[in-house]
Formats: sequence, C-alpha cells, structure tokens
Amino acid sequence: MSKVSNKKKIINDPIYGFITFPDEFIYDIIQHPYFQRLRRVKQLALTYYVYPGAHHTRFHHAVGAMNLMTKALDIIEKKGTTIDPKDKLGAILAILLHDIGHGPFSHTLEHTIVKGVSHEDLSLLFMEKLNEEFDGRLETCIQIFTNKHPRKFLHQLVSSQLDMDRLDYLKRDSFYTGVSEGVIGSERIIKMLNVKNDELVVEEKGIYSIENFIVARRIMYWQVYLHKTVLSAEILLSKILERARFLVQNGQELFASPYLNYFLKNTITTKDFTKDPKALEVFSKLDDYDVLGAIKVWMDNEDITLSVLSQKLINRELPKVEITNTPITESRFHDLLGNVKLKYGLTDEESAYFVYTDDLVNNAYDLSSGSINILMKDGVVVDLVAASDNFSLSTFSFPVQKYLLSYIP
Amino acid sequence: MSKVSNKKKIINDPIYGFITFPDEFIYDIIQHPYFQRLRRVKQLALTYYVYPGAHHTRFHHAVGAMNLMTKALDIIEKKGTTIDPKDKLGAILAILLHDIGHGPFSHTLEHTIVKGVSHEDLSLLFMEKLNEEFDGRLETCIQIFTNKHPRKFLHQLVSSQLDMDRLDYLKRDSFYTGVSEGVIGSERIIKMLNVKNDELVVEEKGIYSIENFIVARRIMYWQVYLHKTVLSAEILLSKILERARFLVQNGQELFASPYLNYFLKNTITTKDFTKDPKALEVFSKLDDYDVLGAIKVWMDNEDITLSVLSQKLINRELPKVEITNTPITESRFHDLLGNVKLKYGLTDEESAYFVYTDDLVNNAYDLSSGSINILMKDGVVVDLVAASDNFSLSTFSFPVQKYLLSYIP
Amino acid sequence: MSKVSNKKKIINDPIYGFITFPDEFIYDIIQHPYFQRLRRVKQLALTYYVYPGAHHTRFHHAVGAMNLMTKALDIIEKKGTTIDPKDKLGAILAILLHDIGHGPFSHTLEHTIVKGVSHEDLSLLFMEKLNEEFDGRLETCIQIFTNKHPRKFLHQLVSSQLDMDRLDYLKRDSFYTGVSEGVIGSERIIKMLNVKNDELVVEEKGIYSIENFIVARRIMYWQVYLHKTVLSAEILLSKILERARFLVQNGQELFASPYLNYFLKNTITTKDFTKDPKALEVFSKLDDYDVLGAIKVWMDNEDITLSVLSQKLINRELPKVEITNTPITESRFHDLLGNVKLKYGLTDEESAYFVYTDDLVNNAYDLSSGSINILMKDGVVVDLVAASDNFSLSTFSFPVQKYLLSYIP
Amino acid sequence: MSKVSNKKKIINDPIYGFITFPDEFIYDIIQHPYFQRLRRVKQLALTYYVYPGAHHTRFHHAVGAMNLMTKALDIIEKKGTTIDPKDKLGAILAILLHDIGHGPFSHTLEHTIVKGVSHEDLSLLFMEKLNEEFDGRLETCIQIFTNKHPRKFLHQLVSSQLDMDRLDYLKRDSFYTGVSEGVIGSERIIKMLNVKNDELVVEEKGIYSIENFIVARRIMYWQVYLHKTVLSAEILLSKILERARFLVQNGQELFASPYLNYFLKNTITTKDFTKDPKALEVFSKLDDYDVLGAIKVWMDNEDITLSVLSQKLINRELPKVEITNTPITESRFHDLLGNVKLKYGLTDEESAYFVYTDDLVNNAYDLSSGSINILMKDGVVVDLVAASDNFSLSTFSFPVQKYLLSYIP
Repeated sequence: MSKVSNKKKIINDPIYGFITFPDEFIYDIIQHPYFQRLRRVKQLALTYYVYPGAHHTRFHHAVGAMNLMTKALDIIEKKGTTIDPKDKLGAILAILLHDIGHGPFSHTLEHTIVKGVSHEDLSLLFMEKLNEEFDGRLETCIQIFTNKHPRKFLHQLVSSQLDMDRLDYLKRDSFYTGVSEGVIGSERIIKMLNVKNDELVVEEKGIYSIENFIVARRIMYWQVYLHKTVLSAEILLSKILERARFLVQNGQELFASPYLNYFLKNTITTKDFTKDPKALEVFSKLDDYDVLGAIKVWMDNEDITLSVLSQKLINRELPKVEITNTPITESRFHDLLGNVKLKYGLTDEESAYFVYTDDLVNNAYDLSSGSINILMKDGVVVDLVAASDNFSLSTFSFPVQKYLLSYIP
Repeated sequence: MSKVSNKKKIINDPIYGFITFPDEFIYDIIQHPYFQRLRRVKQLALTYYVYPGAHHTRFHHAVGAMNLMTKALDIIEKKGTTIDPKDKLGAILAILLHDIGHGPFSHTLEHTIVKGVSHEDLSLLFMEKLNEEFDGRLETCIQIFTNKHPRKFLHQLVSSQLDMDRLDYLKRDSFYTGVSEGVIGSERIIKMLNVKNDELVVEEKGIYSIENFIVARRIMYWQVYLHKTVLSAEILLSKILERARFLVQNGQELFASPYLNYFLKNTITTKDFTKDPKALEVFSKLDDYDVLGAIKVWMDNEDITLSVLSQKLINRELPKVEITNTPITESRFHDLLGNVKLKYGLTDEESAYFVYTDDLVNNAYDLSSGSINILMKDGVVVDLVAASDNFSLSTFSFPVQKYLLSYIP
Repeated sequence: MSKVSNKKKIINDPIYGFITFPDEFIYDIIQHPYFQRLRRVKQLALTYYVYPGAHHTRFHHAVGAMNLMTKALDIIEKKGTTIDPKDKLGAILAILLHDIGHGPFSHTLEHTIVKGVSHEDLSLLFMEKLNEEFDGRLETCIQIFTNKHPRKFLHQLVSSQLDMDRLDYLKRDSFYTGVSEGVIGSERIIKMLNVKNDELVVEEKGIYSIENFIVARRIMYWQVYLHKTVLSAEILLSKILERARFLVQNGQELFASPYLNYFLKNTITTKDFTKDPKALEVFSKLDDYDVLGAIKVWMDNEDITLSVLSQKLINRELPKVEITNTPITESRFHDLLGNVKLKYGLTDEESAYFVYTDDLVNNAYDLSSGSINILMKDGVVVDLVAASDNFSLSTFSFPVQKYLLSYIP
Repeated sequence: MSKVSNKKKIINDPIYGFITFPDEFIYDIIQHPYFQRLRRVKQLALTYYVYPGAHHTRFHHAVGAMNLMTKALDIIEKKGTTIDPKDKLGAILAILLHDIGHGPFSHTLEHTIVKGVSHEDLSLLFMEKLNEEFDGRLETCIQIFTNKHPRKFLHQLVSSQLDMDRLDYLKRDSFYTGVSEGVIGSERIIKMLNVKNDELVVEEKGIYSIENFIVARRIMYWQVYLHKTVLSAEILLSKILERARFLVQNGQELFASPYLNYFLKNTITTKDFTKDPKALEVFSKLDDYDVLGAIKVWMDNEDITLSVLSQKLINRELPKVEITNTPITESRFHDLLGNVKLKYGLTDEESAYFVYTDDLVNNAYDLSSGSINILMKDGVVVDLVAASDNFSLSTFSFPVQKYLLSYIP
C-alpha cells in the first residue's frame, strides 16, 4: 500500500478477495494509532492453543465488517431506499470502530484489569476522542453507534441479531479455525437484506440462509468460543492477572510495560476513563504484547502462585476442564484444593487460584438482543420464529445450563 | 486437545483439514517449551502490515510441513521403496524441527542481535539439546537434518529445491496473504514424488505442476517476500534494534524483557551458543512479544532516534522505499541524509539510521541449492531444465539485480 | 487414464482432490459399459435450469462415495475394528454400484416409464448380472447391499441416515449448485465414525458436525431438491413422457432411440426385468441423451399437447408453480384447466397434462430410515436425539405438509 | 428464478457466488432458444472422460464471462474512462453471445460436419438474426464483436490476449476439472485493468498476475485441452462422424435426429449459412444430445467400422495415443493399419478410420493474436515482454512442435 493515492487503496483479504476503502477519510481513521493497535490484539485471544490458525486480529475483523457494511448499504440502496452519503459514511465508521475499545484478551481483562468497564463504553470514548481530533466528522457515526440516529436500520446493521459484526466474525472465525461447519453465506444473506419502515429486514427467500446462520453460530459457540480447552486457557490467564494485581497492589514490583503496570496498580472504573484522559491514553497502548510479554517473565517470579500459573500458560500445560449438567459437589471442590495445596505448598488463599468453578450459559438465538425480521412476499414483516413454519427455531432460544470446573491437578 | 490419548490427537488446519500426529513421541516434542515458543513467532514477521491476514506462526508451518512429510513418505512407500519406521520418524522429526532455531523477526535478527548466527545452526543446537533430554531418540533426525544419513532422499525431503518446507510455506503463505497466484498443488506434487537410486525424483507427468510451483514461488517472492512495504518495515525494525543495541552497549538502560536485554547487552556468536548453555536457554524464550513489546515502550524514549523510529514502526508510518535497476546516486543519498538531520535535529551518526541502501537479488530456481530431478517414463532421471523441453526454465535461474533505497522523509 | 497400470489409477476430483482406485477389480467394474452409462446420467436431472453448475453425473457421485467409503473403512480399522479385506472390497463395490440402477431423470421415470420399478431393485439386478460376468466376485457386495452380511455396519455405511451416499451427494450437490449453506464437513464426520457392537456409531465429539449435517440436508431439500422451479421442470418432463407413452401405445410413431422406444411401447414391471434379460439390457443403454434428444424432436410433433409441452421444456418456459400450506380449491383448478383448453384448443383429456397438483412431504431427519447412533465418552451408545441435550432435534422429525400446484398459464 | 421481476434476477455460480443480470434485455436474450441451446453444449466436449467433473456448459461460461465484463467495465469507469451506457450494454451482449455459434463438440464438428465454417462466423450470423428479431438492439454489440466500434478497448475486452472469454474459461475449466494449477486470479487481473488511448492496458503492478495467467494457460493446455486421452476421444469422435457422413452420403439410412441428419446429408458452407436461413435454424437445434444420442444407436449398426468405433467411444475404450518429438515412421504406420485390417476384417479404405496422425502446435502467449499492454507507473504503455524485465516471457512464444499418433490396437 504505497501512499500515492488513498482513494484507490486496496487490501488483500483471504476471505473476500480485495477490499477497497470506500472513502479517503476511512483511510485516515485506519492509519490512526488507536486503530493500528487493533493489529496487535487477536480476535480470538488464546483460541490458537486449540486452533493453530486462529491468529487473526481485531484489525482484520473490523476491516472485514467495514467491507460487508459497504456492500449491504449498496444493496439496500439498489432496492430503493435512499441513504444520505453522510449517513453511509457514518454507518461505515460505526462498524469500523465498533470494537476499537477491545483490550487484549478482552473477555479476561473485563473481569480482571478493567473490571466492570465494557468494551462498548470504551469504543464510544475512543469515537468521541477521534471526533474531537477530526473536528466533528464522527458525529453521525456516534449517533448511529448509540442508536440515536433517526434511521434505525443503520444501527441495526452495526448492532443487532444480524449485524455486519456477526456476519464477518462468524465467517472469519470459521475460516481461520478451519471449522467448516461454521461457514455462513454472508454474501447471500447480504443480498437478501432490505429495509422496511426504516427497519432492517431479510427477504423471505433468505430464510434458509438465516436458519443456517443461526445453526452455524451455535456450532461456533460450542466448537470454538466455548471450547473447553479455550475456556481453560482463558481462566488460567485471568487467574494470573488477578494474582499479579494482588501482588502489585501489595507493593511488589513486577516486570511489566508501563501500560500494563498502570492497570495493575490502579483500579480504573468507567467513571475514571471519562474523567481522566490519561486512562484512555494508556489503554490505547495496551495490547497482547504487554500481557504475554509480562507473563513470560513472571515464569521466573519468586511468588510460587504467579510463577507456576505463568509457566503453565506459556508452556500450554492447561488446567483440566470439566463441563457438566450438574454443579460440582462441595467435597470434590475441597479435595481439589487440598491436592494443589499439598503439591505446591500453598496457603488457602493461594490455592484458590488453582481451582475454579462457574456456570456457562449460551443462547444461539438470543431473544433479549432483538429478533430477526423477515419480509414476506406479501409485504408483511414477521419475526423469524413465526416465519419459519417448518423449523422450530424457538427451541434455540432456551438457555442451556451447564457447569464448568477448571483445576490444576 | 485433551490429554486422554496422544495417539488420536488431531489438529484442525484451515489448509489441509485435519492433521493427525503420526506418533506419540511427536506429540511430546510439540508439547516441549522449545516448540511451543514457535506459537509466538510469526512466519512472515511484519508482512501483516501489507497483508493483514498474514499472522500465521512458525508453529503452524512446522506442523503443516510435518503433515506433508507423513504423506510423502506414505506415497513413496506405496510405490515400492521400503523405509525403516525409525527413519520415517527421523524424517518427520527433522522437518518438524527444521525451523526451531528461528528467532523472532528472524531475517532482521540474524543481521542485528544474533549477527552471523544462522537459524539452521540454532535448529541443530536445539535438536541436540532435545536429543539429550529424550535419551538419544533424535539421533536419526539429526543425521537426516545434517545430511549424514545414508538414504539421501530423506534429507532431500527436508531440505532441497522441492522439500516439504517449501511445499508447505508457499501454500500457507499464499493462503494467509490471499495472494491466490501463489497457490501450489502441494497434494498433486506429493503424489508425483518417487525415489530412484535413493534420490528424490518427480515423475514425468508431474512436470507441469513443478513448473507451476517454480512460477508461483517467484510470484510469492515479488508480491510478498520482497514486497517493498514489507522490506521497508523490516529495515526500519533492524535500524531500531541496531540503535537499541548501541544505546545499551553504551550504558543506557532500556525497557526490555530479560531475554531481549541479554542479546542487546552481549554479543553472542555461534561459538558462544555452543559453549555456554545459557545463551540457548535465553534464546529459547525470545519471541515476537519481547521485541514489539519493548519497541512500544521505546516510543517514549528520550533518545530521539530510537523514539522516532519506534513510533514510526508501531504506528505504521513506514519509510519510503524505491526499488530500481540502477544504484542510488551519491548526491541523492546525501540530500536525503541532510533532510532528516534538519527535520529531527540529528547528528551525522544518528541520521544514518534514517536512510538505507542495499542491493536485492532473487533467483526463483536457484541452481546453487541443487536441481529438481525428473523421472522420465523410460526410467531415466534428468534435471528439470533438461526435461522441460517446451519451457525455457533456464531463464529463471539468472539473478535479477535490483537496488533498494529506503528512507524516512 | 492410460491402461498401463490399473493399480495407480488416479482421478482428479474438484472436491476431494485426487481419488485413487483402491483395487484393480474396482477399475474393471468402472470400465464396464453398465457403469460408464452413469457418465450420461445427471445426478440432479433438470436442476441445472435453476443452478447452471449442476451438471455433475451419477458416475462422479458413485466414484466420490467410493472414495469416502475407502476412507471410512480405513479410519474404522485404525480405531481397532478388524475388517476382512474381502468385506472391505465388498463394501466399496456396494457403494460404487448402489445407484447403478438409476435411469435418466430417475424420479420422473420411476413415475412414468418404468412405473413402480425402484432404482434399488434395478441396482440389485445389475449387481447380480455383473456377479455372473465376473464369476461371483460381487457375492459379498450383494450381501452387504441387501443387508444380509453379518457385519451390520458395512450395510450402514452403504445405506443409513449417515451413509457414504449422503455424505458425498450433499457435499457434491452443494458444491456444484453453489449453495454454500449445504456444505457439510464430510471429512470431519468420517474421522468421527467408529464401530460398536458391529453397528456404525459417531463419537460424541462429532455431535455438532452431525447436527450441521442434518440442518444442511434440510437446507438442500428446500433450496435445491424441492426448489419449485426444479419441481416445475420435472413435472413438465413427466407430463411429456406420459403423453408420448399414450401416443405410442395408441399406435403413433414418435422419433425415439430404440432404447426409449422400448419403454414407451411396453409396460415393464419389476417382474419383467427379472424374467426377461432383454429389459435390463435395453435399460442399460438408456440415458439423458435418449430422453432430451427425443423431446427436442417432439417440439415439431403434430400432437399439440406433445409439441407445446416439449417446446416449453426445451426452451425453459416452465409452468408456474405454487407451494402452499392449504390444498388448491376445486374452482381454481377448473379455472386453470379452462384457460389452457381455450388457449391451445384442447380436449378435457389433453388439458389434464397442463395443470397438476400434489402434496409435498419432507422430513430432514427421517426416523423411519433409522437413527444416528452416538458413542458417548463413557462408552454408552445413544440416539442422536437423546444425545443432543441442547438441541431439540426432535423438531426436525415432524413432516411438514405442503401442497403443490403447477400449471401452464 | 421466478418471473416476478427480471431486474433482480440472480444466478448462483459456484465460482463467482452470485451473478446479477445487469439489464432486463440481457435476460430476454438469455431466455431465447438460441441461447438456451448452450445449456446442452458442454464447454469441454469429451474432456469428462479424463476429468469427470468437466460437464460445465457453454451457457455457464457465457454467463460467467458476462459477469466479468460487467465488473471490468465498472472498474474501468471508476478509474475515469467514461463509457456510454449503450456501449456498455453492447459489450456485455457481445461477450454473452461471443460463443453462441459453437456447435456440439465444436472442434470436432468444425472439421467434419460443418467443415470450414468457424464458430465466430456462426456467432455473427446468430447475432444478426437476433438483431432483426429485437429491432436493431444488437447493433452496438455487433459493431464491438466485429471490431468496427470506435472504442477499441471494448472489442479487446471481448477478444484479445486478455479478454473476458479467457479470464472466465481458464478459471472455470480449472475449477471443474480440478486442475488447481490452472487457477487464475481473474478478480485481481480485472482490478488492474485500465484504458489508455482507448486501448485496454494492465497496470504495472498487475504484471505478476499476468505472468501467472500466461503460465496457468499453458498448464491448462498441456494438462487439459491437449491431454492425450482427450485428444484420443475427440479424434475417435471425428472418425465416427466422418464414417457416418460417408455412409449417409452413399445412401444408407442412419438413426439420427432431423437436425444431425441434415448436416450428415448436406455439405453446408459458410455461404450456405448466409443464403439459406434454414441452415442456421437447423443448426440452432443441434447439440450434444443429437450427436451422442445417435452414436449410441450406431453401436449396433451393420457397418463394422461405424459400429466398432461407436462402441469404443461410448464404452470409453479409447484409441492409444502417442505424442512424440519426431513424426511416426511410414513402416510403423503401415503395421498399425495392417493390424486393424486383420483384426476387424477391414478394407484399406475402412482401416484408415482406425489409425491417425497429425502434428500438434501450441503457443501459450501467441503473439499473432496481439500483445498484452502494460501501463507503467510513469504513464508509458509497453508490451508485456518488454515490461517483464525479470522474466523471459519471449520463450513462451516459440511454438513447440510435437507429433500425434492415435490408433486402435
């Protein structure tokens, strides 16, 4: 990508072939250090411990989702819905930046280092910061992202049961993991999109593609996102970070980049991010390299808990994981704690880092985040579950309760 | 991958589908921290700055090459060449470990931090170390790797014009970059392999696949490996590491992991690696995370050269690159140096980090590393160039001389 | 494919890459005129009127299913079930020949020209004929095909809810139609196959792949096999053949190959096929070319019904089709008949060829043809519906009642 | 494809995904019986005897080439060349109809049944006939096809070294044969197209894709188009048709459709096609079904030459083929003739149908049909051979002389 002309910039994507930037301003946003950081944040965190191909980044996903958004807006326009060019750019920016607030190993960090701060909140803070820098050119983008824009379908393309985010990440994650059952017909689905009363709808003939999309999503959840080895690695990572925070907050010096150190030392809430610009600035430099780079060094730390856990993560000696239909018994739990205490010479408090239980919930078609609307041939709009007369999709919406146990033997 | 039974371990590869481990011992080697490190070393270094999908690792490549080796040995055996099971395992181990000596950003590091130490030498050192740990079970592997094994074709499968290394990396690199012109018919080529007089040969009907392989390789060189933006990023990285070394060796403290710090502070030669086990041990912990993790922090260093170069790398503001048929003139070179001195207020010595020239050579069918032998239908073995009567392959073997200039404007 | 050596014969398949013939005898069977005929019988009849890529043949499908069978037997053996080489060859032959009794446009012909003779019956007759020719070498094949072989899983691999037939045709049909939602992970499923108590089972971890397979199958039914334009073309074809038979049986001479003519003139039942070897011999020469070749000429026939219907089929002016949840009303039906009588000047009897109604049934997971057995990790075998605790597969097994109307306006 | 609205018609293509018809008039042309005939003419004739997947039709290729043309015109326009909508439609029609004059087994028929009548001439006649029917709406299309349109690049997109015809057929043929080495980056090449001085050019950075295209084309020639088993089948077919014509012209009645019979009985020249509308009308109904349908029946003909050859073709017992660097000797030729005379009891004249020799020529980059122009970064246009400084493409343009012998043993 030489600098000759931004307008003709092209990116080579193994999935979509070529991706063209729809606008020069998009290119400026992509070049911004905030966005470049996403090149250093893997989309699927430690999933590569199970699927060695899964090293794709949030950068790549964001660009892919942008590509789908451009195509979707194009198709919707060709079907007769006029869209203001400013709104189009806004929607494209909104999808491009929808994940910019993701930290490294996001699901883990949101429960340890930036506890209680959602990546959506951070994405919005980044958008507002960029909006300042670029003299208000992200105004519409922010309206759409926060669902304050009058044309509802624009927000739905960014965030709903059938948004460009999901259409890209399912396709991308199945491609890079090699789980071919997760492959969805994004192109076909997008060709079936339309707008009715300013709401996003899918044309009736697209109904099978939608059903396939829902089933594929469910398969990806169980085979990839909730794969127990992946969960095991992520739990281990969270225990390491919890321990490191505990040590730092009790005065110990740990090897860490200044960015990671900041979040180990301080307890930063959403409010802090809003009040103190420094927090966001430091966060904007935090990525996978800080976290794994530090943990590698912690392998030799004198704190036995920190060093053992770190070694296990780096050398991929992952905790045992069990997923069951009933919760673990008290006595089994205590036995497992007892074992590690004995084996590593730990205190009660330390042994709690080695054994972990939780419950696991997943809804493939999660009604709480809205339904998928089908535009029937007679012009009526109905919900997918109603439209799909031959497929009891409703069965997908009952949560499956499972219990998780993870422990170092 | 749970620990239940190593024998049935399966890896999901987006390229080959499923990869099965041919032997339990292979699994033990893969689980070793030396090998796990390869998960943290990207195959194509900074190429993802041009091809955002190119985040695949040396781990993945090594496992892929192992898979091809297993298939190749299978086919050769089915065609009537008996191979001792011990030799098969040896060849599989040799290809699995052939790249284990690669450091992070290998091509750059071999010219900066571990100057003059080739990754082949280091791979051999790692193999010898593992051989000790595993009571001599890598003896045959080492024989094959060092071409001391009586059955020459085994070494040729590991290292030759048509080895499993190339068959995997060309396919993998073209897959992950999305450069479809680089796709080769690895499966077809492997089906055409045979052994004659203990030498690896390709059956005559495979000749077009071989020609395609050579052309695809050449395309990959110019479109990916020698892509000028990639070169630009790698040159920039080497300048940063040179500067960091200079500073450290002159007594400045830089943020760095102990592993990187060791190589910044000391000058380690091949001899040192052989004599002092610590060098290899430290090297076995060095990966992409140490290098990029440090450079991110160096963005704020007070040394202007180090901080400017680091910022440019991290934020992807890469040096200009020109590739020409004639070398750069003296006067142009001095002008460019003058510009940066003025712009950043640099000394003569510092400005040399900002402007760089070199020459560039590439042979697609490099005769120096041996020829490809074709087994004609009449049983005679001839060189590809002779066999290919309708294709002047010889023209591929003349080096193309080009000159490279890279500078920060 | 020269005749040099059958053993190394290789076929290039766009789906599986290379297919190797597992045995010389297989090659002899494939070369037999009975089998070569399948090259002239399209797998999906007139589906190419909707999906222009769908020209693949029954020959290709049979070879593909043979390839999957070879792999499945291999994997089952590697997991510890010994299989007699004779039985392996038998199973491979059985899958290779399972569809050899298919005539051209099979679903249509089974309701018109060879009314009441199933292709399974004809396949068996062909196998018996080949068994004579080849001195009893198809004995085991026939045992397996007719489910008289003691090892039940061999028959299940040929014919069951999860047989190699389905695993190939779903993959192949989705590939050639381009309906990506129908793509299934055949390779993955085969890797999960096992045998328990001589019954075919799927290992528990393959459960999501099986679910995906069932959903994909359902999608293929509605998007391809029961696509209403495809149905429309097939109904039209059946009406043409009915009319042609009527005319021939009433003494009119129609252009037709001797093979087609034989079946137009005579009414051949399953019993006739068994008693008179000529019937099978003539059938063994009947293919797509006889049928479409004749219909093209019938476009100029003086019988108005035959010529109008033939023109409509050849020029792809297909009847209107409606699929509804309630049956068509008497009055609408009579109106439609009235229209065509008027438009083309037809008698009552003739107009019946122009308007057609039927009901449509489809079960994705049809319990009547047996269940899919899952081998749980604890060694217990359970039915898929029971095994899949988080997915109400049972909803798939209720037939969906729909009604079909097809008419020429 | 229901009839609701032509404008939104979509075709599912396994290669490009979805193809949208760029204009309602295009749909009318596709629906015309002349064009629908192409559904019954295989693109690669008897190639499926070697590559069982190669059943794709000229219909599918024409639609695919239309799709590429639409994209190419789009890209050229976006780069600043204005194109009149009428001219765009003309170019799209020209590529859609460029092959409409192809008969069944075209290369064979052009040397037997319609000797000396090229398919290009016939395509033009069909276009002129359609132009009449559609009140002059194909005027521009014909101008472009015959290179009489002022904007030269439009013709070049239809017919030149780098036309949409080749870009589609290479991709399609490699896809359906499974010869992955023939895969070309059509999409990438099209993105690199531009227009300079009304001539089609490729931008400099596309040079490697072009080289790959040329090499891929050459591979397809040797692996597919000139595969000796394919040649063997086609020679056999031509001998059958020659014999049939000889018999019919000597008064024998052969089973044949009226369309095939017309061309067996009469000797139709280009002039006849122009003068007598009947010739074109009959030709417009001739397809693969007439030819293979008749040959099947000829298997039982009393003429020993016709029946033996027909049996061999239908049952795929193909003649031996040898391709050599020197011509066959007289004595060998006479021996082979002697053998078949003896074996089948033939006269001298009859035996000539059983043994055949010819020479074989192929140029991958055939300079005679024009060069590929490269637009260098400095704006200069040079020929590919000159532009490609590091690749001796000139070596591709020397014809390779080979000799062919085909005989029934």
